[in-house]
Amino acid sequence: MSYSKQDLVALQQFYANQLLNNTVPFWFPRSFDKEHGGYLLMRDADGSLIDDDKAVWIQGRATWLLSTLYNTVEQKAEWLEGAKLGYNFLNQYCFDTDGQMFFHVTRDGKPIRKRRYFFSETFYVIAAAAYAKASGDASAAAAARMVFGECIAYASGEKKLAPKFTNTRPSKGIGVPMIMMNTAQQLRETIGDERCDEWISKWIDEIETFFVKDDIRCVMEQVAPDGSIIDHIDGRTLNPGHAIEGAWFILHEARHRNNDPHLIALGCKMLDYMWERGWDTKYGGILYYRDVYNKPVQEYWHDMKFWWPHNEAIIATLLAYLMTGNEKYAHWHQQVHEYAYKHFPDATNGEWYGYLHRDGTIAQTAKGNLFKGPFHLPRQEWYCNQILKDYIK
Amino acid sequence: MSYSKQDLVALQQFYANQLLNNTVPFWFPRSFDKEHGGYLLMRDADGSLIDDDKAVWIQGRATWLLSTLYNTVEQKAEWLEGAKLGYNFLNQYCFDTDGQMFFHVTRDGKPIRKRRYFFSETFYVIAAAAYAKASGDASAAAAARMVFGECIAYASGEKKLAPKFTNTRPSKGIGVPMIMMNTAQQLRETIGDERCDEWISKWIDEIETFFVKDDIRCVMEQVAPDGSIIDHIDGRTLNPGHAIEGAWFILHEARHRNNDPHLIALGCKMLDYMWERGWDTKYGGILYYRDVYNKPVQEYWHDMKFWWPHNEAIIATLLAYLMTGNEKYAHWHQQVHEYAYKHFPDATNGEWYGYLHRDGTIAQTAKGNLFKGPFHLPRQEWYCNQILKDYIK
Repeated sequence: MSYSKQDLVALQQFYANQLLNNTVPFWFPRSFDKEHGGYLLMRDADGSLIDDDKAVWIQGRATWLLSTLYNTVEQKAEWLEGAKLGYNFLNQYCFDTDGQMFFHVTRDGKPIRKRRYFFSETFYVIAAAAYAKASGDASAAAAARMVFGECIAYASGEKKLAPKFTNTRPSKGIGVPMIMMNTAQQLRETIGDERCDEWISKWIDEIETFFVKDDIRCVMEQVAPDGSIIDHIDGRTLNPGHAIEGAWFILHEARHRNNDPHLIALGCKMLDYMWERGWDTKYGGILYYRDVYNKPVQEYWHDMKFWWPHNEAIIATLLAYLMTGNEKYAHWHQQVHEYAYKHFPDATNGEWYGYLHRDGTIAQTAKGNLFKGPFHLPRQEWYCNQILKDYIK
Repeated sequence: MSYSKQDLVALQQFYANQLLNNTVPFWFPRSFDKEHGGYLLMRDADGSLIDDDKAVWIQGRATWLLSTLYNTVEQKAEWLEGAKLGYNFLNQYCFDTDGQMFFHVTRDGKPIRKRRYFFSETFYVIAAAAYAKASGDASAAAAARMVFGECIAYASGEKKLAPKFTNTRPSKGIGVPMIMMNTAQQLRETIGDERCDEWISKWIDEIETFFVKDDIRCVMEQVAPDGSIIDHIDGRTLNPGHAIEGAWFILHEARHRNNDPHLIALGCKMLDYMWERGWDTKYGGILYYRDVYNKPVQEYWHDMKFWWPHNEAIIATLLAYLMTGNEKYAHWHQQVHEYAYKHFPDATNGEWYGYLHRDGTIAQTAKGNLFKGPFHLPRQEWYCNQILKDYIK
């Protein structure tokens, strides 16, 4: 199958409509916390608040979303004012005295938990950069660049975080080069930063050299420092939705580089490998974890269907189709789009449920919690809308 | 309904037969690691090894099981020699230089991970105490007493482990008084220790005062230091199988104290409250997590059926029935026994699967991993066999 121009126009209108008339209105304006700043995002299906705590990742991601909508869709005062609430809350309450960021704070910004990762920091960078572009606030741009520098220091090993494991069996994850690549892409596209191109090339090289295994058609989630597979439960665990997210970050980079053919081929094969391993041929949808050798994984909930791998797969398949014209990708896009928009949306209250059993039934009803909020779904709808507009104009 | 003496005899024979002809032979002797000591327990359904790493909790628990079988069932040389393998491995490889124990080590005992809990230590205490009784090794008895002293220091707050959370919202969990009570019971019943009775009374008092909520018929998994409910996602999360395990620890203590009526009432109401919240009236079985106010819990896999809550519920309902004669408990015991022995066993290879979807289908096939091994199932079959023998003699 292939998509006609008319099909693409219909898809673009569908995503734009979902984004602006369903997904974003579920969250905003009601989640703006005008009393303490930031956002109240931990909500049940009907929008009622489950918890007034604030997850720092999600505060940053929501600030990014509101700023990005303002920058690219419409200069709505509500979005800019909303982004400012998040940006100020992050600055005021989410940094520890040692410069590291917290993971989880109370409604009024008291720290609950700090984790041994720097993902709060990467989401801060995209939030501050997008907000800087939206507001013209030069201090936000400076803050984004400064924290990006910290992230580079962590990612390159120049700065160390407290380790969770001993050095007995060293490993590295694909998560770090992936998130750093996307953080740099966002920084480059909002306020620009001359460090980005070179680092993006290094991180792509890292992914290609160490994590992409052509012989077994697989993208590893973690490997030994030399790229070999660690044949233990954790080392064998694959996260297909995550690798597919990495695939579209690389396709996005290929577009930025005038459709660089090597990067198109790399992104497409990462998608191919992990679609083969992740797509559930029995029930449809993307399985959460797989073992590289089909052994049992540690995580007993490995076969659940989470919302976000479907968002990433919708983007990756659409982008692969638009960039290559390969009908396989149109077919996959249609499959994952239809599965996702059939099983995840809440027809009554808008937005998506986050967690389905393998068979597609709803496992729990929260729209927002420590890990879910206004990010993967609106980003997918926004990104697909943007890219389709480019291709159909 | 009630159980006739004949029914109880049949149950006793059933549990003894399962234990000795199904569960224990799945694990031993093949899991003895004669090369490096300890046990190779991370196995798939058919017994094939998934991973040769060693989880310290499970190494301790398996040492306890083998020693306990030797002490109470039959003085088989294989069990004593097997217990020695585990006891020596724990001593040789599982303590860090600071005296704390690791959580996860390689086959040859190199440390992979240490966690900010002292559960490795509590399982060491029951392993060393049971092994000391089996072997007559006085140094094992001394080691059990010494590490029990460390555990008391952690449990009472005299010694601190690195905190995972800030002090913004202090909480305490039922897990500490529960595991300490059971550790002390095991120590008392194997080698004896004069500290046990007083501490057990304190831990039961802690559970009764702070965690058991008669007004809402609930046993909390964690509370604020004053016992109030922390109305946030984590604070509201209940673990019915865990609370039911606590219920039978208290019933066990009631038996030790000549059927102390106050403790019988306490154990039975804990069971009542959490059966009401945990039993799945739609599919049968014990749900893993519930929210105290029926809101969504953070853990998306909350409605899965794990093996061990069923082991704990089988013990608790049987013990409650035997101690009170209340027919409700015979009915519940029959329900959970039938559900569990219908859905969890692997008819081909023996032992139980660990992880079912809510509807009772198998979610993954591992018999052993970082958290599952020869403990809850054989302990249940062993305990039920022992107690039934007492009641039918």
